[in-house]
Amino acid sequence: MTTTNALNEVDLEAVGGLAQAIVESPITAATTWKATVEWDGGFRSVARIRDFAPIPSDEPPALGGTDTAPNPVEQVIAALGNCLAVGYAAGASAAGIEIKDLRIDLEGDLDLHAFLGLRDGHAGYDDLRVSVHLDTDADRAAVEALHAKVVGTSPVGHTLSRAIPLSIDLA
Amino acid sequence: MTTTNALNEVDLEAVGGLAQAIVESPITAATTWKATVEWDGGFRSVARIRDFAPIPSDEPPALGGTDTAPNPVEQVIAALGNCLAVGYAAGASAAGIEIKDLRIDLEGDLDLHAFLGLRDGHAGYDDLRVSVHLDTDADRAAVEALHAKVVGTSPVGHTLSRAIPLSIDLA
Repeated sequence: MTTTNALNEVDLEAVGGLAQAIVESPITAATTWKATVEWDGGFRSVARIRDFAPIPSDEPPALGGTDTAPNPVEQVIAALGNCLAVGYAAGASAAGIEIKDLRIDLEGDLDLHAFLGLRDGHAGYDDLRVSVHLDTDADRAAVEALHAKVVGTSPVGHTLSRAIPLSIDLA
Repeated sequence: MTTTNALNEVDLEAVGGLAQAIVESPITAATTWKATVEWDGGFRSVARIRDFAPIPSDEPPALGGTDTAPNPVEQVIAALGNCLAVGYAAGASAAGIEIKDLRIDLEGDLDLHAFLGLRDGHAGYDDLRVSVHLDTDADRAAVEALHAKVVGTSPVGHTLSRAIPLSIDLA
């Protein structure tokens, strides 16, 4: 592995190899991701993903939970932050930008009326706000170009900012 | 606590108390949720939510990661499953339906071309499919009514199936 490949500890050869494989065989780009959630009493549940340890979920006491883990709407914005971090790491490495530190703050507003059945309408986030704090010696123009690229290609960002067809069936 | 309140281990009094508080003071329904993500080298990051232990994120080797944790797009569908589990637990308890077991299988298709910069366009999920497996002695009509209520009031479900205003700023 050359120094360039190790920039930000990102395996650019793996990413480049995948891109090349997709160019040669576009169907390779078609991926399917899965999770299984099991209810654990009250508002507690665990999510199982591949062979990883189950990830717990709960609600705060004010919402009737036992507060043993982050709740689902917090998990969604955490996933967005993690996705942007991957995008930053990949894009910075490809552009030769060293990341000294990267922190992403996320927040969203959500009105509980619909969730609680007090009125019909939108039960989800009303908006999401993200602030990216990047510590780097790269010049501002390069960082702004990186930011635009990351925002424009974020799988979770696009999933949240666009309407995704969602079918929920009772087995 | 009465037997009814303990059905499915759900604290209906807390949920009912919150709903009543919101009816009396609608501003109470306005909630804001936060997370902070810190990059940890390569495609690894951790999400910090309130005082809970940091939740790790990574990518599989095929995507250039070190495969130490679920990736962000898996985390998103896990959050959806957890949200539906809360909805089911709350709704079932309110309707007097005992949940003997509840499992939710989720999957989604995602084309990697846009994420990898191989073409412009949608980088997120193309669609999401959820199958709810509920073990209960309640009759089918009651379960179908519960299902419709849960799907119609899911905060994460609505966040994914609708376009949410998303601002991502470089600090």
